[in-house]
Amino acid sequence: MLETISVTTSSHSEMVDITEQIEEQLQKSNLRNGIVIVQSMHTTASITVNENADPDVKKDMLMRLDEVYPWTHRKDLHAEGNTASHLKTSTLGHSQTLLVDDGKLVLGTWQGVYFCEFDGPRSRKVAIKIMEG
Amino acid sequence: MLETISVTTSSHSEMVDITEQIEEQLQKSNLRNGIVIVQSMHTTASITVNENADPDVKKDMLMRLDEVYPWTHRKDLHAEGNTASHLKTSTLGHSQTLLVDDGKLVLGTWQGVYFCEFDGPRSRKVAIKIMEG
Amino acid sequence: MLETISVTTSSHSEMVDITEQIEEQLQKSNLRNGIVIVQSMHTTASITVNENADPDVKKDMLMRLDEVYPWTHRKDLHAEGNTASHLKTSTLGHSQTLLVDDGKLVLGTWQGVYFCEFDGPRSRKVAIKIMEG
Repeated sequence: MLETISVTTSSHSEMVDITEQIEEQLQKSNLRNGIVIVQSMHTTASITVNENADPDVKKDMLMRLDEVYPWTHRKDLHAEGNTASHLKTSTLGHSQTLLVDDGKLVLGTWQGVYFCEFDGPRSRKVAIKIMEG
Repeated sequence: MLETISVTTSSHSEMVDITEQIEEQLQKSNLRNGIVIVQSMHTTASITVNENADPDVKKDMLMRLDEVYPWTHRKDLHAEGNTASHLKTSTLGHSQTLLVDDGKLVLGTWQGVYFCEFDGPRSRKVAIKIMEG
Repeated sequence: MLETISVTTSSHSEMVDITEQIEEQLQKSNLRNGIVIVQSMHTTASITVNENADPDVKKDMLMRLDEVYPWTHRKDLHAEGNTASHLKTSTLGHSQTLLVDDGKLVLGTWQGVYFCEFDGPRSRKVAIKIMEG
């Protein structure tokens, strides 16, 4: 089963918890065991799995990624000016594979699934593939 | 088939080769062809595939990751103080997908599978999903 | 189905678009729905999904990765001197999972699949697993 969900972001950089939306698609599918692959359909937005408790983790992560890949760089050639977004996307990954056991996502206590906006605010699409096995 | 293995780490940052433990689970499953998905159940520990020969590669990788994501940062908000661990985890990835051909992991000559501890020492859990296809 | 394709690189660092080669393998397989897992068989070369339009994005990405992980580092221990390549490989990932819907790769408008050489020029191998589901 392949579904597409929409994510609307409201900042330039933002981590949006989409765990519940993925769980909803999983419930609809009635899958008991298998995997779910979650894919950002964009080259300036990632999917990652990280801390779902203290919201400061997200703020710190985005702040530090901005330092490692600063928005402007004197040597950048790309005319659109969003090279940093492309780098963050490949660093965190355009997709993540999640496990499903007995109808539920297999996640650790503190693990949540995030859509990571790196060049917003924008309307974005996320593909969700649910696969038995 | 979904199994969980334990990894006990002994340092703050550490790369533990878990290739053999994954091969053992694979043998038990009798799978001939398919995939194995290896997932860290934590938000401060990753799975990655990298060099299994010279142990200095691991030391260099951990040393340099510490420079890119230093342990302390004057702007960090997260009270637990382990923001760097969360960043390393998303950078290397919470899980990796491995290929299985004729009952064996498909790995290049120098490729090994590593559990990467970024906030140890701790007792950790790794989920291993073995899937035919 | 498991296939291996060859990629010959011509620079020390280089992003080679292999989307068409993957599409070819997919056509040969006659798969309608499922996934394709693309794996670099090396520890100094990655697979990533990123911008397929402006070639300057690739140049900028490689230039900035060189700054984050410089080729030489006074503290490196690894005698081969390619620690930076190993780090870039784990950062971008040794493999990526792609979705297949109705016989075609599910990619956003600007998404292409890249083999990323980080210690070339060399002859490289990429494993392609095509899996129904």
